[in-house]
Formats: sequence, structure tokens, C-alpha cells
Amino acid sequence: MKLNVVKIGGNIIDNSENLHRFLTDFAGLDGYKVLVHGGGKAATQLSATLSIEAQLVDGRRVTDIETLRVVTMVYAGLINKNIVAALQATSCNAIGLTGADGNFIRAKKRPVKTIDYGFVGDIDENSINPQNIAKLLDGGFVPVFSAITHDGTGQLLNTNADTIASALAVALAKLYDTTLIYCFEKKGVLKDINDEASLIADIDPITYEELKKQNIIAGGMLPKLDNAFSAIASGVTAVIIGHADELGHIKHNKTFGTRLSTGI
Amino acid sequence: MKLNVVKIGGNIIDNSENLHRFLTDFAGLDGYKVLVHGGGKAATQLSATLSIEAQLVDGRRVTDIETLRVVTMVYAGLINKNIVAALQATSCNAIGLTGADGNFIRAKKRPVKTIDYGFVGDIDENSINPQNIAKLLDGGFVPVFSAITHDGTGQLLNTNADTIASALAVALAKLYDTTLIYCFEKKGVLKDINDEASLIADIDPITYEELKKQNIIAGGMLPKLDNAFSAIASGVTAVIIGHADELGHIKHNKTFGTRLSTGI
Repeated sequence: MKLNVVKIGGNIIDNSENLHRFLTDFAGLDGYKVLVHGGGKAATQLSATLSIEAQLVDGRRVTDIETLRVVTMVYAGLINKNIVAALQATSCNAIGLTGADGNFIRAKKRPVKTIDYGFVGDIDENSINPQNIAKLLDGGFVPVFSAITHDGTGQLLNTNADTIASALAVALAKLYDTTLIYCFEKKGVLKDINDEASLIADIDPITYEELKKQNIIAGGMLPKLDNAFSAIASGVTAVIIGHADELGHIKHNKTFGTRLSTGI
Repeated sequence: MKLNVVKIGGNIIDNSENLHRFLTDFAGLDGYKVLVHGGGKAATQLSATLSIEAQLVDGRRVTDIETLRVVTMVYAGLINKNIVAALQATSCNAIGLTGADGNFIRAKKRPVKTIDYGFVGDIDENSINPQNIAKLLDGGFVPVFSAITHDGTGQLLNTNADTIASALAVALAKLYDTTLIYCFEKKGVLKDINDEASLIADIDPITYEELKKQNIIAGGMLPKLDNAFSAIASGVTAVIIGHADELGHIKHNKTFGTRLSTGI
């Protein structure tokens, strides 16, 4: 059985027209599928209205108890349930989840070293039991995960949505022929970040090393791609990084975005 | 297979110690089980902080679009996911849901007559497909419903939690030997509302008529009991109305609260 694990970024969620188009395309994908969504601006806006100051350390949000309340409300409530209702309107049998539900994703609160990130959960290959999620997929449901997990002792935790998507893909690759798809507002991995026509269509581990040597891929894209190749090394068939507007191409067997694979 | 559908009221949710005790007892119940929870004060408090004025008509909350956002965040996000995480900590495999998830409860937006209740959903016996929910129960999950539904066209709706509990019990009574349990902060149906010792332990349709004639049951309790006897007439085995602190008695085959049954 083929499975697509699709991550949708916050910039798409913030635009209701883009989100609606994306969800229609997602609903149209054949086979098993899982959606993972990030947060968007709604959490930042609600925090501002409630006078909770957003704290960032090294570009990462520090999740104090008030911020955890806000992201639980916005990610697991407002955004997740509106996405589920929109998918249901297209006859996609979505079921909205956090990692606490069904104990699907058990995280560990990040240890305090130099920085206390607060209520942030880290996950690894042991955090997810694929048989547990397979019960939903085999039952005809389409799991929609928000970026909230738990620690198993009653504590909810804020967890990076990209990491959740890749951990789900790696865990489910034990059961299904799994493709991991990151949808965002760019065409994919670009040779020139300012030129959408400079898309790199395929990368395998050998070309990846060359692109890094030549400094064509650098900066913020490196951890994303390292993570993607690590998922492939752990059994995920391919990783696609592409524009949310082009997800529908998959249904018509057309390629889109940048496709990462073993190259074999 | 025996199934308990348990509704927990807002007054219990507002007290974390009472809620924790209740959830421990709920987790300990044998057989299949479903939890339905109301809202509590958190939605009212968040509305106040966001300067959204609560509107009540005939004691019912009018749900404008801003209020719908708040209840979606608080009921489906904050309260639901914290209850799920707490149940998971006791090894109860809870999965938190709205009626939109899995299309489990499809409601109809209440028609505007003299009053426009806004985004409020009404449900009936056709709103719930029990086979759909049975997939979760048979898969070992414990569904935890917040009082949010959808209309099937992408619109979330605010729906009374008592009504959700009785509609779920009636639908699931087609598949399971179903008991509906309303837990709140009183011992049950009382002869004298100021005397917790005046509990009426059993009511059947005949004694119910007599209690009404004698004006022993009157006012706000009437619609609750009418609704309960209607559920029994539709196949629910029994309805128990009792104190949240006494739910654990069921596990030890002790009676608690007021038990409504056909009397046969």
C-alpha cells in the first residue's frame, strides 16, 4: 500500500484561498495519506492579543506555560478542526489529532542545558508506534496531526511540525511504501533562491554532496535536507519538497518540486 | 459488549482536583466507554479577555463567529487535549474528537426563527453513524468528544454536550448494551434540591409521571429527564444521573445517583 505523509507550512495556512486549494488537492490523493500542519500567524496574533510576549531563542520559540495554552488552543483546536471540517466537506474522512490522542506520538520534554525551551517535546524513532496509527488508516480515516505531542504523564508539549512529519514517515515506512512531501510557498530546492526557475528537480546523496561542496545548497536548507536524507536512509521511499499549489500533480503522475531519493 | 457513555459537566472540569479524580475513575471503568465533556468557565474567561461579549437568549449561548472561534479553541483544543493527555497518563487510550472528526456527528445549523442562535448545531438520530465510531471502540480507543460538531460543508458548529451524549448513546445502543451516565456536582435527582440526602435512587416511567404530578420533579430537571427517558425508549439500557465523585462505584457494582430505566 502506498502512503503519502504531507506537511503543510504556516504560510499556506494563513491564506484561506491557498489553504482551500491545497486541501482539495490533498483530498484528491489516492491511497493512504496523513497530513501534518504547522501553526501560522494565528498563535502569534492570539498571544499578542493576550499580551503574552513571544520568546525566540536561536530562531526557536520558547514555550512557557501560557504559550503552551495558546498553541494548544490554536493548533489543536482552531486550525486542526477547521482543516478537518474543510476536508470532510470534500468527502475526505479526516480525523484531527495531536500526539496525545491514541498515544500516537510520545515525546520527551527537551532537557534544560544552556537554554530552557520550556514545554517543547523532542521525538525520535521510538516515539511513534506505527501499528497504532495503522488502525486508523486501515479503518478508512485520514489522520490530520497538529504539532502538539505529550510526554505520557499528562503533559502536552509543543513539537516542530517538520520533525513530526519525518518521524511519522519513518515509522510508517515499516508498514507502507511511504513518500514524505513538504509543501511550502517555494517551487522546491532552488539553485538561486531568488529565481523560481532554478529548481533542482532531483537530488540523490551523491549530487547532494556536490551541491554542498559548490555552496549551491547552504544555510537554512541544510538541516531540512539532512533530515530528509536521514528519513530516506531509514526506509522512506522518497522526499518531495515543493509548492503547495502543485501537490495535485502527484495524482496525475506528474513530478513537482525537488525529489530526494537514494538515487538507486 | 457493554458500553458506558459518560458526560462530565463544566463545574467538574473547572476544578482540577475533582477533574483528576473523575478521570481516574473513568479510566478504571471496564468495557467500552465514551466520554463527552462540556465547556466550563475557560471559554467565558477567554471571551472576556478578548472583549467578546457573551450573549445569552433564554439561557442559551448565542454563538457568533468570534464565540465559535473561542469555543473551538477552548473545547476542542485546550480542554479536550488536556483531558486526553491526563487519561493517557493512566493508560486509558483516549482519542480526542469533535463531531467533524471522522464525520462522527453531522449537525444542522439551527434555523433562524424568532432568535438567531448563530453557529449552533442541532442533532438527531440521523446525525450519528454508530459503525463509524465502532471502528475506534473495536480498535481499543476511548473516544473523548468535545461539544463541537460540523455541518458537512466545512462549517464547525457549537452543540449542547448533554444532547451529544444522549445522541451518541442512542446511536451506539444499536451495537452495544449501552448505559448513559450524566456526572455533575449533585448526588442525582433530589426530592428536595437543598437536601443531598433526599436522593431518588430509581425512577421508571410510571414513578416519573407520579413525581411530576406531585411537583417533586419540576423546572430545569424536566427537560433532562424527558430526554433521558426518550433515550431509554430508543434502546439505551439505563440512564444514571449522579455525582462525578461517585462514578467509581460502577466498577465495584455499587449503585450511585439516580437510575432511570424502563422499570421492566
